Amino acid sequence: MTRTELFENIKKKKSFLCIGLDTDLTKIPEHLLKEEDPVFEFNKQIIDATHDLCVSYKPNMAFYETEGVKGWISLEKTIRYINENYTDQFTIADAKRGDIGNTSKMYAKAFLQNLYFDSITVAPYMGEDSVAPFLEYPGKWVILLALTSNAGSKDFQVLNTGENALFKTVLKTSAKWGNADNMMYVVGATKAEMLTDIRKIVPDSFLLVPGVGAQGGSLSEVAKYGMNGECGLLVNSSRGIIYAGTGTDFAEKAREEALKLQKEMDALLNTYL
Amino acid sequence: MTRTELFENIKKKKSFLCIGLDTDLTKIPEHLLKEEDPVFEFNKQIIDATHDLCVSYKPNMAFYETEGVKGWISLEKTIRYINENYTDQFTIADAKRGDIGNTSKMYAKAFLQNLYFDSITVAPYMGEDSVAPFLEYPGKWVILLALTSNAGSKDFQVLNTGENALFKTVLKTSAKWGNADNMMYVVGATKAEMLTDIRKIVPDSFLLVPGVGAQGGSLSEVAKYGMNGECGLLVNSSRGIIYAGTGTDFAEKAREEALKLQKEMDALLNTYL
Repeated sequence: MTRTELFENIKKKKSFLCIGLDTDLTKIPEHLLKEEDPVFEFNKQIIDATHDLCVSYKPNMAFYETEGVKGWISLEKTIRYINENYTDQFTIADAKRGDIGNTSKMYAKAFLQNLYFDSITVAPYMGEDSVAPFLEYPGKWVILLALTSNAGSKDFQVLNTGENALFKTVLKTSAKWGNADNMMYVVGATKAEMLTDIRKIVPDSFLLVPGVGAQGGSLSEVAKYGMNGECGLLVNSSRGIIYAGTGTDFAEKAREEALKLQKEMDALLNTYL
Repeated sequence: MTRTELFENIKKKKSFLCIGLDTDLTKIPEHLLKEEDPVFEFNKQIIDATHDLCVSYKPNMAFYETEGVKGWISLEKTIRYINENYTDQFTIADAKRGDIGNTSKMYAKAFLQNLYFDSITVAPYMGEDSVAPFLEYPGKWVILLALTSNAGSKDFQVLNTGENALFKTVLKTSAKWGNADNMMYVVGATKAEMLTDIRKIVPDSFLLVPGVGAQGGSLSEVAKYGMNGECGLLVNSSRGIIYAGTGTDFAEKAREEALKLQKEMDALLNTYL
């Protein structure tokens, strides 16, 4: 999916919502556990109930890997279901991968070619040759960790590396490896005020913003400091949406939560775009 | 496995060799492709032929994930085969994971509990709460990336963060999260002379050293600068061993290469221990 297509979808749906599919067998409604593949059944109903309110789905690999082979089957069915039924969704493999070149190449093949995700989240620590193999797929995207939403982001990401904090150096350096048409950045919503500085370094890039909702970030602050002329934001919510309900009406409840965010996003798009 | 047990195995086998199982369907001998599970069959024969010469096996997750569900089955069979037949092997899930706490928790369960690996490689960028969930398994280990062997290690790892280069800050800071009995570090063999400085920060910790062989690092330099009183080194070779042969005698050829390294290691243990 191109940047233009993503922006068109955002305008059409009046939403820049990404829904995180952190699907946990111990948290999904009990009645689903009778199904042959409870994780896929859960995802399918969530997707069917929310697809018109969001522009992106982000399955979190850890939640599938923890179920082993069964989990990979659920993951494969989920991404195939989205790709076959909702082609306007920007799909993100939330994997935080990154290794030496010949290994990153294998991860790229696994997620961008075989599973046909539009994008994958990548950790920057190992540098350019650990990221480059993911950029070799035309039309696909790297979403590089810059400033994350967790407490541990203070440990290394904000350390001063000469002129800039490490996360800014990551933005500046990596901007030479790709461009705003094949690289996005993870920037946590809990650091909304820092988006002003980030926009000076990567004015055109899309930012994937986790941490709204369960992690405490504010959507309006993110839009205020982070939106650019083509929106430039994908704001993720996972637990706040998918676990909004615990009964047989869980998908409706998820839709209600997604709708609240979509309405807020519609207003913010009207304000800042 | 405890640090003492690992050191005992090193002395018993006169080896601190780790063999990387980067098993690639396009590189294994052609006659194996007829097998029901060529990847597992390859691994099994490599392991049977080399287990007395090494103390550790390190399957590289990317190579299994790229084969999807089939790959996960091969991975599960491989780790079970090692755990059932060669209990003196220290097993490493080379995964380079690391995410917010509730996600790292899922990865920890996937690799340390379900697949029963002794350890997992973890990326430090997201800080303490991204690493801590892996440290909650008694007897299990985090192997944290410090200074990697690839060209991209220059991009961020060696940047100055105040007093120290980033990789040294990673060593110092993370040493407070765990200790030499549950945390090791990845230090590339291509930077052997830097091991002197690294040993000042983490004198007792085991170091996992990739980059000998295919990536050009020198084993004797690594031992000279990096060995401590309990060896403190696991030196990995992947491609140089497992792809030494391409015919039906591939396992013998792998053994020959492993034997060369083991003999060199025996001599180095005699010199420095």
